Amino acid sequence: MNNLPILFMFSLLACLNHAIELDFCVGDLSLPRGPEGYACKDPTNVTADDFVYTGFRGEKVTSSVFKNNITLAFVEAFPALNGLGISLARLDLGVGGVIPVHSHRTSEIIIVVKGTIIAGFMDQNNTAYYKQLEVGDVMIFPTAMLHFQVNAGSTPALAFVSLNSENPAVQLTTFSLFGGNLPAEIAQQITYLSHQEVMRMRGIFAKA
Amino acid sequence: MNNLPILFMFSLLACLNHAIELDFCVGDLSLPRGPEGYACKDPTNVTADDFVYTGFRGEKVTSSVFKNNITLAFVEAFPALNGLGISLARLDLGVGGVIPVHSHRTSEIIIVVKGTIIAGFMDQNNTAYYKQLEVGDVMIFPTAMLHFQVNAGSTPALAFVSLNSENPAVQLTTFSLFGGNLPAEIAQQITYLSHQEVMRMRGIFAKA
Amino acid sequence: MNNLPILFMFSLLACLNHAIELDFCVGDLSLPRGPEGYACKDPTNVTADDFVYTGFRGEKVTSSVFKNNITLAFVEAFPALNGLGISLARLDLGVGGVIPVHSHRTSEIIIVVKGTIIAGFMDQNNTAYYKQLEVGDVMIFPTAMLHFQVNAGSTPALAFVSLNSENPAVQLTTFSLFGGNLPAEIAQQITYLSHQEVMRMRGIFAKA
Amino acid sequence: MNNLPILFMFSLLACLNHAIELDFCVGDLSLPRGPEGYACKDPTNVTADDFVYTGFRGEKVTSSVFKNNITLAFVEAFPALNGLGISLARLDLGVGGVIPVHSHRTSEIIIVVKGTIIAGFMDQNNTAYYKQLEVGDVMIFPTAMLHFQVNAGSTPALAFVSLNSENPAVQLTTFSLFGGNLPAEIAQQITYLSHQEVMRMRGIFAKA
Amino acid sequence: MNNLPILFMFSLLACLNHAIELDFCVGDLSLPRGPEGYACKDPTNVTADDFVYTGFRGEKVTSSVFKNNITLAFVEAFPALNGLGISLARLDLGVGGVIPVHSHRTSEIIIVVKGTIIAGFMDQNNTAYYKQLEVGDVMIFPTAMLHFQVNAGSTPALAFVSLNSENPAVQLTTFSLFGGNLPAEIAQQITYLSHQEVMRMRGIFAKA
Amino acid sequence: MNNLPILFMFSLLACLNHAIELDFCVGDLSLPRGPEGYACKDPTNVTADDFVYTGFRGEKVTSSVFKNNITLAFVEAFPALNGLGISLARLDLGVGGVIPVHSHRTSEIIIVVKGTIIAGFMDQNNTAYYKQLEVGDVMIFPTAMLHFQVNAGSTPALAFVSLNSENPAVQLTTFSLFGGNLPAEIAQQITYLSHQEVMRMRGIFAKA
Repeated sequence: MNNLPILFMFSLLACLNHAIELDFCVGDLSLPRGPEGYACKDPTNVTADDFVYTGFRGEKVTSSVFKNNITLAFVEAFPALNGLGISLARLDLGVGGVIPVHSHRTSEIIIVVKGTIIAGFMDQNNTAYYKQLEVGDVMIFPTAMLHFQVNAGSTPALAFVSLNSENPAVQLTTFSLFGGNLPAEIAQQITYLSHQEVMRMRGIFAKA
Repeated sequence: MNNLPILFMFSLLACLNHAIELDFCVGDLSLPRGPEGYACKDPTNVTADDFVYTGFRGEKVTSSVFKNNITLAFVEAFPALNGLGISLARLDLGVGGVIPVHSHRTSEIIIVVKGTIIAGFMDQNNTAYYKQLEVGDVMIFPTAMLHFQVNAGSTPALAFVSLNSENPAVQLTTFSLFGGNLPAEIAQQITYLSHQEVMRMRGIFAKA
Repeated sequence: MNNLPILFMFSLLACLNHAIELDFCVGDLSLPRGPEGYACKDPTNVTADDFVYTGFRGEKVTSSVFKNNITLAFVEAFPALNGLGISLARLDLGVGGVIPVHSHRTSEIIIVVKGTIIAGFMDQNNTAYYKQLEVGDVMIFPTAMLHFQVNAGSTPALAFVSLNSENPAVQLTTFSLFGGNLPAEIAQQITYLSHQEVMRMRGIFAKA
Repeated sequence: MNNLPILFMFSLLACLNHAIELDFCVGDLSLPRGPEGYACKDPTNVTADDFVYTGFRGEKVTSSVFKNNITLAFVEAFPALNGLGISLARLDLGVGGVIPVHSHRTSEIIIVVKGTIIAGFMDQNNTAYYKQLEVGDVMIFPTAMLHFQVNAGSTPALAFVSLNSENPAVQLTTFSLFGGNLPAEIAQQITYLSHQEVMRMRGIFAKA
Repeated sequence: MNNLPILFMFSLLACLNHAIELDFCVGDLSLPRGPEGYACKDPTNVTADDFVYTGFRGEKVTSSVFKNNITLAFVEAFPALNGLGISLARLDLGVGGVIPVHSHRTSEIIIVVKGTIIAGFMDQNNTAYYKQLEVGDVMIFPTAMLHFQVNAGSTPALAFVSLNSENPAVQLTTFSLFGGNLPAEIAQQITYLSHQEVMRMRGIFAKA
Repeated sequence: MNNLPILFMFSLLACLNHAIELDFCVGDLSLPRGPEGYACKDPTNVTADDFVYTGFRGEKVTSSVFKNNITLAFVEAFPALNGLGISLARLDLGVGGVIPVHSHRTSEIIIVVKGTIIAGFMDQNNTAYYKQLEVGDVMIFPTAMLHFQVNAGSTPALAFVSLNSENPAVQLTTFSLFGGNLPAEIAQQITYLSHQEVMRMRGIFAKA
């Protein structure tokens, strides 16, 4: 009876041995990437540590003008997500803190862990769906819609958001319009903002 | 020899007869729709006319402030697109005309048919990629990125854009921020625009 | 100048008016569903409340043998997720608490909010990747792999998991084998467990 | 100890009770279908029989001109496939039997169970990849490419093919050109066949 | 006040700095490609020019037997499409010009810009859906179905087609059957064309 | 007339020449792979042989404890499947043979070719759907559900299964729990099996 298992492991595992594929593809950021993500790290070098991300530990400083701190566990910071279609971000909002209006290629779901947050999105009919969220509340922002989060309370707020791509993109609307190389004249034409306001915004958002 | 074909049609078509599925699903807008689109119109009532959309014919008036005219051949206007993952829009830009900054859930490809257009998009690093397009030029706007089109010439411009969804959404950024029910206070917080400018924009964009 | 905006809204919104599609499809659980989810609730009845789920509020009792409590914000409990490809669950683990080995159709990402959890998964080569997670740690469980979470500390633990489907399924392995209508004889054959152990497990897991 | 399991089942199953979604969606062919398939049969009426298709049993007659018999286990004949993305077909080829050139929306994989078959496909560079297959041989036909199977032996042949959609479509090229309502003049223009041959083909393929 | 923006840019952009992923993946045709497309060109070398294709400019000569000219803005000619799921083609049809019967892996949508075109497709029930299209008309050809375009007027015709893949394939039916290395005997068997006609077609379509 | 075809081939093929993309991507197992599969083998070296897999030929020995033999035509063994979304496996079951409980990332469809097999799956409500299959019977196992096959007859059984991925994974439940490096203590906690049984199972399944 004792040698049966050995036989059995031998034959069943042997037949599977040459056809066992990868169940994950931890990204190797040093190799060229394709449209669907990074090439896979050699699986013989993958350990449990690859599947754990510790960048959300501890307190986060919310010292910006928007009094926020965004920490992204997207594929570049957490290469084990490569190809798995999901990611996470930590949002810290100081008192008065704001995550400015932005969008992703994906849907987003938020869970509030501390504080009180007004969150919402606008759809293509310009209807805003927004609500005050308490600790434990969950809100869904449909795919690609403009959305935002604002600390509505008198204490810091903390939330986690999950997005259904490992590379969902974060396009901050006003940063895109005023914080890069888009000429002021075009920014004005495509927003209908006043020249004066466009210049003020560029003063704030443009890279020094 | 003559009766062979008859026999043959009988047996081959007969065996296929009860398992032939639909190759299309022309939307029936009167039935409840699901996340992937409309229920299918009864295929016995589908004719070649269902697959043709004529709403792009003729001249379009570009009388708005933005001096544009957007005609959408999306699934609601053209139900044969239901489930087929593609759509088309016609863009008319008068002299000085603009398609304001906006985004979709999808990619977009443009072909300029008349006139000269400056078109571009911003990525999440706030880099703007924009260029002057002449007749015959094609430009691609990557999935979900903010983008725009501006008539850069002294004559009206005409272009067609195709999007890889029959329901790609058109979210016009400034309309979403100022043209619907989003409170002015939130609009100000999430954009960093001045109170005065937010009120001015709402005056322009808000539905009368 | 004053009548310009009115003109402008008239022409631009008018042309969009008949082609504006849905950006979301809040599930109407009373209608027949299809393979991709529920039919959409009438959008004119959708409010911001539809996009918020409050079932994670407050404390959860962890009184089961496994000393856990699983609260699912999947599409049935939170119909706004319908078609949006993401969901969330709250895991409460009392001292000694366990989420038994299980699998989903999707990937899963976990964030630990309280306590200490040993979490892990096995791949098809029977390699287990497991690690002790502290507060703030994130772990990814690749698509469809067997995985588990165990409270490794001396205090209750709390975690949230997100899955990239609104209907990801939760198949608890031992419940499927011993808690339903699978005959004991087959359960024994397909697991190689002893007859005695199969009967003991069925005594525990079978519905009374 | 005895009442522990009862308690345990109560709490764990209770919390899951209202959030358990469907793992399958057996098609209800009497309800309207959408682009992704049929509405789901009420799951309380689903039994193991729904998941089994017996239409491939026994011998098949191959009496057509092409001396073949095609039996399709596609979603219409086997509604349990609805939404599951796979299907099967049985191919019987009498001596001299042929599956005429055709295409699908999907990939196809064939396994030869009896006899000898020459199978192949053409790619868009007009390269034909074809080979004689013996019992046990497997061949893959890439997505949407024209392909065919011909009995190359002196005995009947039997094969099964699987396709990665429950509704992959079978478009038989010459049937589409000559067996329906396409006018002869157009058929001639778009194929460059002679008028005489087009008329001969229509005589064979046209529905009596 | 002046140093606030600097502080703000520092903290918000800094935290995003190491997690900003690509929004596009302009194909690098010199690197190995995978099933989903080419590896990405180094994004630091990408400019606005990459996103613009000028190969549709000017007049096209329609001197072939089919009196057509097909210009493809598919991923090989326009590498910025890589991974973005859409492409474009320009169809020029001289008087009497024809785009012979063909198919793609995708859906196709056509917009007629000049002239009059009869376009259509056949479904798997051998029903042809065809119609005469005027300037401005749009037609949809469902996924993978055989379809065609014929100049129906007395002047040259021009149309653009968009397909929902950057690599949709163009399989010209008669070219695949007669223009490559498929043996005449097999071509005859799988089409039921006469031997004489197969030989005539090969004479026309075979590469010299 | 004779030189027309030459002219025609010249112009039509010439215009297509630089834009013809790949229709397949035979995996090159020596290159780095990405989340969607292997890099493509140089298409100029691809022949018909690449598309044919002969590893299912002949008789298979079923000498393991489970008296089975599983032969996988997955992408690693059959690289032409790369990117095509389908695969095949051959199941040989000796008298008393069993395919132990397992799961995939995909759906699976089975066709019984010899013998009698009891096959089934459990859903997340712990309902088992199982049935005795005769020669010619087809059964579908929904995506990611635990399932099994048992020889129910007095002769060897043979079946083929197809899965809608070229890399569907095979996770054998008891092998994952007891045959790898998962500590016995955790295995016990997450299954509720007795310590004694866990140790017995590890004795059987653990690699020597």
